[in-house]
Amino acid sequence: MTEPAPVYASGVDHERLTAQLRFILEVDKLKRILRRNLLVDGSRRENDAEHSWHLALTARVFAEYAPQGTDIEHVVELLLVHDIVEIDAGDTFVYDTRMSASQAERERVAADRIFALLPKDQATYARGLWEEFEARLTPEARFAKAIDRLAPMLANWHTDGGTWVQYGVTKDQVLEKVRIIAEGSEALGSYATALIEDADRRGYFSRK
Amino acid sequence: MTEPAPVYASGVDHERLTAQLRFILEVDKLKRILRRNLLVDGSRRENDAEHSWHLALTARVFAEYAPQGTDIEHVVELLLVHDIVEIDAGDTFVYDTRMSASQAERERVAADRIFALLPKDQATYARGLWEEFEARLTPEARFAKAIDRLAPMLANWHTDGGTWVQYGVTKDQVLEKVRIIAEGSEALGSYATALIEDADRRGYFSRK
Repeated sequence: MTEPAPVYASGVDHERLTAQLRFILEVDKLKRILRRNLLVDGSRRENDAEHSWHLALTARVFAEYAPQGTDIEHVVELLLVHDIVEIDAGDTFVYDTRMSASQAERERVAADRIFALLPKDQATYARGLWEEFEARLTPEARFAKAIDRLAPMLANWHTDGGTWVQYGVTKDQVLEKVRIIAEGSEALGSYATALIEDADRRGYFSRK
Repeated sequence: MTEPAPVYASGVDHERLTAQLRFILEVDKLKRILRRNLLVDGSRRENDAEHSWHLALTARVFAEYAPQGTDIEHVVELLLVHDIVEIDAGDTFVYDTRMSASQAERERVAADRIFALLPKDQATYARGLWEEFEARLTPEARFAKAIDRLAPMLANWHTDGGTWVQYGVTKDQVLEKVRIIAEGSEALGSYATALIEDADRRGYFSRK
């Protein structure tokens, strides 16, 4: 844990600011959590922080494909915090069933620690965002999750199959993720389906 | 330029979606633009994409220090796009006066190319965000810029002076950046001043 600078600023609640700084410094670690998928140019693996930025921007660009009435600002908020628990829990590859089984518990423990660094009101709010994202009960959470599932598909298609090829993923496994995209956005679900059919023609999926 | 997958999705304006995808794929390059400052743990240089994520999140955590009436969602929007021009123009170190002279023109040319990848309505909007950030005429832009200036100070303080030491930066040069922080947020300006005084006591600034 990196401790904030021990300085006092006039006119500022020192304890509150220190808690906020502790959180801001702690989440810097998200920049070192590597995902399985590569950058679009294939040069290296993507990290969770830059991934989160890309999703937030993508959500804004694709706002028109969200169901009517979806609050895009709230979608962005969800995406900014959605992977923070991976600082402790690590990135779980979506096609790794063994790790996925313990994922929920590991991430809950991580949320307990990391969001609690913030002042209490903000901690409750930020943790609520993460829980909302995971539960997918709101249109905003479903759209955010759709963007989160679509992004690695784009990266995989543009890197000759990427992690699909590397880990021997089957078309059926990917179509399950497409269903999650369609639940968040009809248009993006339709696009993802077309993308997967094309990837299949190119032989990117395992036949096992 | 990475071309989007040549696939057609039913019920989607193909030309529009392709333009959006071209932009989304292009900005992936921001993950490879390195800044001068290091991560908080000192392990490597920070890239523009993960930096933008960190700022957007920091803006939300520090929302209470923005002047009353500041639209924080809009601040986040500004921060998500504020560095995209650096894909072409590169990162300009804030204390490099020679590069700073040509920076405005290089970034304008970059904005002309990159934002224009989007459909026309979105291109105009996104470019407007970048211009608003640069002009600092709105409370949102001033607060966004304050966060952008404060972040590397936090990183420098936590890495034994970081780029201040590495490039022989003087206290006066840094205090000029503190002024920009104070213009966006009185409280954060006050904090930055205290942080710089402490950094000075620790001998992080050049006496030249």
